[in-house]
Amino acid sequence: MSRRLNVGIIGAGRIGKVHAEAIAFSIPEAALVAIADVQAEAARAVAERCRIPRVAATADEILRDSSIDAVLICSPTDTHADLVVEAARFGKHIFCEKPIALSLDQIDRALDAVDKAQVKLQVGFNRRFDPNFMRVRVAIASGEIGTPHLLHIISRDPGPPPISYVRSSGGMFLDMAIHDFDMARFLIDDEVTQVYAAAGVRVDPEIGRAGDVDTAVTVLHFANGVFGTIDNCRKASYGYDQRAEVLGSAGAIATENVFPNRAVISTAEAVRRDLPLNFFMERYAESFRNELHAFVDAVVGDKPVPVTGADARASVVIALAAQKSHEERRPVRLEEISQVIAATGL
Amino acid sequence: MSRRLNVGIIGAGRIGKVHAEAIAFSIPEAALVAIADVQAEAARAVAERCRIPRVAATADEILRDSSIDAVLICSPTDTHADLVVEAARFGKHIFCEKPIALSLDQIDRALDAVDKAQVKLQVGFNRRFDPNFMRVRVAIASGEIGTPHLLHIISRDPGPPPISYVRSSGGMFLDMAIHDFDMARFLIDDEVTQVYAAAGVRVDPEIGRAGDVDTAVTVLHFANGVFGTIDNCRKASYGYDQRAEVLGSAGAIATENVFPNRAVISTAEAVRRDLPLNFFMERYAESFRNELHAFVDAVVGDKPVPVTGADARASVVIALAAQKSHEERRPVRLEEISQVIAATGL
Amino acid sequence: MSRRLNVGIIGAGRIGKVHAEAIAFSIPEAALVAIADVQAEAARAVAERCRIPRVAATADEILRDSSIDAVLICSPTDTHADLVVEAARFGKHIFCEKPIALSLDQIDRALDAVDKAQVKLQVGFNRRFDPNFMRVRVAIASGEIGTPHLLHIISRDPGPPPISYVRSSGGMFLDMAIHDFDMARFLIDDEVTQVYAAAGVRVDPEIGRAGDVDTAVTVLHFANGVFGTIDNCRKASYGYDQRAEVLGSAGAIATENVFPNRAVISTAEAVRRDLPLNFFMERYAESFRNELHAFVDAVVGDKPVPVTGADARASVVIALAAQKSHEERRPVRLEEISQVIAATGL
Amino acid sequence: MSRRLNVGIIGAGRIGKVHAEAIAFSIPEAALVAIADVQAEAARAVAERCRIPRVAATADEILRDSSIDAVLICSPTDTHADLVVEAARFGKHIFCEKPIALSLDQIDRALDAVDKAQVKLQVGFNRRFDPNFMRVRVAIASGEIGTPHLLHIISRDPGPPPISYVRSSGGMFLDMAIHDFDMARFLIDDEVTQVYAAAGVRVDPEIGRAGDVDTAVTVLHFANGVFGTIDNCRKASYGYDQRAEVLGSAGAIATENVFPNRAVISTAEAVRRDLPLNFFMERYAESFRNELHAFVDAVVGDKPVPVTGADARASVVIALAAQKSHEERRPVRLEEISQVIAATGL
Repeated sequence: MSRRLNVGIIGAGRIGKVHAEAIAFSIPEAALVAIADVQAEAARAVAERCRIPRVAATADEILRDSSIDAVLICSPTDTHADLVVEAARFGKHIFCEKPIALSLDQIDRALDAVDKAQVKLQVGFNRRFDPNFMRVRVAIASGEIGTPHLLHIISRDPGPPPISYVRSSGGMFLDMAIHDFDMARFLIDDEVTQVYAAAGVRVDPEIGRAGDVDTAVTVLHFANGVFGTIDNCRKASYGYDQRAEVLGSAGAIATENVFPNRAVISTAEAVRRDLPLNFFMERYAESFRNELHAFVDAVVGDKPVPVTGADARASVVIALAAQKSHEERRPVRLEEISQVIAATGL
Repeated sequence: MSRRLNVGIIGAGRIGKVHAEAIAFSIPEAALVAIADVQAEAARAVAERCRIPRVAATADEILRDSSIDAVLICSPTDTHADLVVEAARFGKHIFCEKPIALSLDQIDRALDAVDKAQVKLQVGFNRRFDPNFMRVRVAIASGEIGTPHLLHIISRDPGPPPISYVRSSGGMFLDMAIHDFDMARFLIDDEVTQVYAAAGVRVDPEIGRAGDVDTAVTVLHFANGVFGTIDNCRKASYGYDQRAEVLGSAGAIATENVFPNRAVISTAEAVRRDLPLNFFMERYAESFRNELHAFVDAVVGDKPVPVTGADARASVVIALAAQKSHEERRPVRLEEISQVIAATGL
Repeated sequence: MSRRLNVGIIGAGRIGKVHAEAIAFSIPEAALVAIADVQAEAARAVAERCRIPRVAATADEILRDSSIDAVLICSPTDTHADLVVEAARFGKHIFCEKPIALSLDQIDRALDAVDKAQVKLQVGFNRRFDPNFMRVRVAIASGEIGTPHLLHIISRDPGPPPISYVRSSGGMFLDMAIHDFDMARFLIDDEVTQVYAAAGVRVDPEIGRAGDVDTAVTVLHFANGVFGTIDNCRKASYGYDQRAEVLGSAGAIATENVFPNRAVISTAEAVRRDLPLNFFMERYAESFRNELHAFVDAVVGDKPVPVTGADARASVVIALAAQKSHEERRPVRLEEISQVIAATGL
Repeated sequence: MSRRLNVGIIGAGRIGKVHAEAIAFSIPEAALVAIADVQAEAARAVAERCRIPRVAATADEILRDSSIDAVLICSPTDTHADLVVEAARFGKHIFCEKPIALSLDQIDRALDAVDKAQVKLQVGFNRRFDPNFMRVRVAIASGEIGTPHLLHIISRDPGPPPISYVRSSGGMFLDMAIHDFDMARFLIDDEVTQVYAAAGVRVDPEIGRAGDVDTAVTVLHFANGVFGTIDNCRKASYGYDQRAEVLGSAGAIATENVFPNRAVISTAEAVRRDLPLNFFMERYAESFRNELHAFVDAVVGDKPVPVTGADARASVVIALAAQKSHEERRPVRLEEISQVIAATGL
């Protein structure tokens, strides 16, 4: 494929804009040809910023455009599964923001459609493409720290989302910790078999009244014997806290947070530095570009995508198990989730 | 009490020598007057080094010496409970190395004797006196980081002990993680109500054949709603790894390891520093001195000791619950342990 | 000015490409309309990458294009002064790579032309726009560390340039340390009055045979009483070393190097991290974008440019004084350089 | 020498007490047998604390005691030279606090006496025994960073001494920077041939009125071609700042300050740590013990002392050259100092 990959974008919100800029400004192998959003003004703004020639009236218009090779699905979560099914039907390669859906049967329907259409589907677990976590993956994959034994992930937001968001989010495990479940699978490169989660409401009682938790620790049992712990909180007063540590038979690797500068200030009060990058748009800016590069590479070079539909499904299963563990106050095997689903069509 | 506190030492092994030096060289308020060890040569060597005037033939000789105000019990673990009982009977104040015993009924017997004799008993959880962990405690107690939400302790040895030691150790939870259970209670200043432990053999199959584990993660549920995770391994190839992190409502505090120097070397290969202090004799040297200071202060000033028999008992209960959780693969409430003990006299 | 600023680029080498990308991909307020390079192929490549509509045959063609508001001069150093003069004559605003020239009379000729034409001239001291050094400037300007007393700059390249480059470079002070002289003036926000430089050949005797030095320390005396030291070397085996430290009456600020990731790896050998970003294209990527933003802002908003022709001249005077100090092995007052120039037309 | 080395101490002030404790509590090979101080009460207090059997009425009484093998001279600076001469005459090995004297002829008189008596003399440049600076020395000596090229020493006090002290101190170069001159010689293991110093009054005008400076940078030219810069200030608001950096052909080494703990606190304001150890009694506690160990080792084992009278003299010559450079605003060769002395008996 010597010509540029023609890309259409569905959704011109915050993340749609990020992906549009990545394609427009750092991926010469791809060209943005159309964008659609239910809010036409948003689509027009991104189109102007990123010099996208056409603002489509609907997502459908983009899917039916035969000049378009691939679509980026950046619309609200509850539209993802249907759009994946439709895009697959029209033979488009698909980059879909996470999660594909909050229920496994919808995910499975989408993955089936992708499978039948033989198109590529990459899911937006962008943190895999962060240079820090990539370095951890390399340390494990290369044997630099030997066989992994223990994993610890810290993942805390600078503050909780609005209560309205919490209510429709699917809960902290499906909405927030899901990134960490994917990270755990990515770093250890193995499957989780059992989950134990302990969670509570520490940050805001309103979150509890909305039926959710805001603070949790989760223990992951991997098939290969590794144990992982994940430490989640909806609020870290000092900002976004995103770290991982792995102990292996020959050493350990740990990542620190990312700061806006490398200055250390010493005064009569303290030796201090500025706060870490506050949230994901800054903290993961590079990873967003990297994941799009990887997607374009996979499509153009007809290579496997680095984050598959199966990956997306697996993290949802872990999240459902974590939620169940929290509710039933016992460890939950992942096969229980599949059995429940088979039985009930959850 | 204007005169010096007269102290006798029972046990002249590695830890006995550490405590003798602390008294001799850094605590002017106390004087060493006698030392006993079943290996008389060891007692003599410490006596010479620390200028202790008398080498006693037996522990009993020390306990019967009415000029002695306080004893340090530094003999093997299986002698602790009996010596505490005897020392209490003779009205001595007692500093006893941890653990008092591996079973709760022996501990309770010792604590009863202390209680009846109205003597002071301090137990050797020295890590509470490490400047790093003391700083974490201060941050929580002073409100510097607000109300605590999440605790994470990393505690890894540079290498496993001999298999013979493993066999009689009571298992990794009672032998090694017990320090971390005490640390968790110390830092959070609250009681643990439930434990979930996941453990396995990752370092040495021989340890597994001896009936023990060498790698574990433990989740602690505190009465006040805090969740703690503890990450233990018998082997960290880079040395002794001893850290803690607490997230609170207003901030977080995390400790780093302690290094022999503060030099950073940059070469064509890496930017690196020397390995952390390798094991507890170096890493906790200051804490060993500090705990003896605190004991002497408490006795001389007739103040409460900072680590009580109840503290010693509590950490053993957590360890027993962790062991049970690991064996039964479910979370275990601490009250289950007391009930089992009440029923069976474990 | 509501329309985009029309920009032409002269020079499509490494730095020309960097600036073209900055305009094309991150500055919506400006549009690239033409590029020229004596190597037409290089110009074409950048034009395609950055979607520049026109490849001009010569710099002159760009200067004569009345639709162009501003030019970026990215051609070889010995063409800078003449191009500045010409661009000013055609009323273009000018961003010129540093240095304008290696001799003061050429610089003065260029600055005169700019002055007469009343166009804006910004010189490419990009390091002022690095987030780390900007943070130091802010700490001083805001009074965060009080009145500055002492400055120390470390500036070491990963390896020396080719000997052919060394021969025509004007020497290490004019070629390499000049960035640090500008940084010193920028951070302290005051003028240097005297310089003492000690320099030698430590890295490569070939550099000495070419009449240059490769290692130097320079002491700067500022008018306000601050003393600065600069530590330069053509080779740091661990990579590009770019740091600054300032002690003030109320505190100090120090910057660390920038690394490709924030991972720390601990093995049986060392606790280490990967090497810092190796050279200026990576280390200063953000600063290159920032300086172009600032230039476009200044032109579009008719505001003063943040790095002036006078700044460019001042750093050359310091470099000439440092060279003279090294040769004559004595401190040199900056006014001596002006007198020499007045007398000899150096 | 199988018996303990008998040591007498002259001077029971702050540093005398430090050395007495080192001998009493951490050096079993030596025994304190007598202490003298013009303030008998001070001598008695140290004697009790360190269990020294005898408080002598005068220094002379100690020097005449034939049972004493070695003396520690910890009295005021202006008594050092005479006491060294006397102690040598009585055949005592000598540990003398720095400086031996502020003038070279007094130093030379003392060194002559030591030479004639063939006793050992170690001078109290304790910083050589700090684990951080020892690590730098090892990195250079072992070739770990290749051939050294550049040295930078930062040495700042938490605050200036009383003006009365300043007046009799000999000036900042002789009183404070002298430690750094010795450190430079120790680390580079070579002789300084030329000095350039720039100094001023930044901290307290009263210091200026007392004829001294409080802030200085000094450039050292070593015989082997290394350049060193030293950055001194009488006041760092964040505490005691003691660091060194060396660039070599194969790498670099840099030391950080020493902190009371390894805790990092993150709040909504900053990511910070507590201030470094505030002053030399804490910061250099270990080095004080180490230097006494080294002295006792040298005497007991009849080995060369690690810091000689020649070392003490060399740092004074550098300090005099730095003072002269500052006054005459030009680089000063060290041989000038010797010539001046030869001519004038300074």
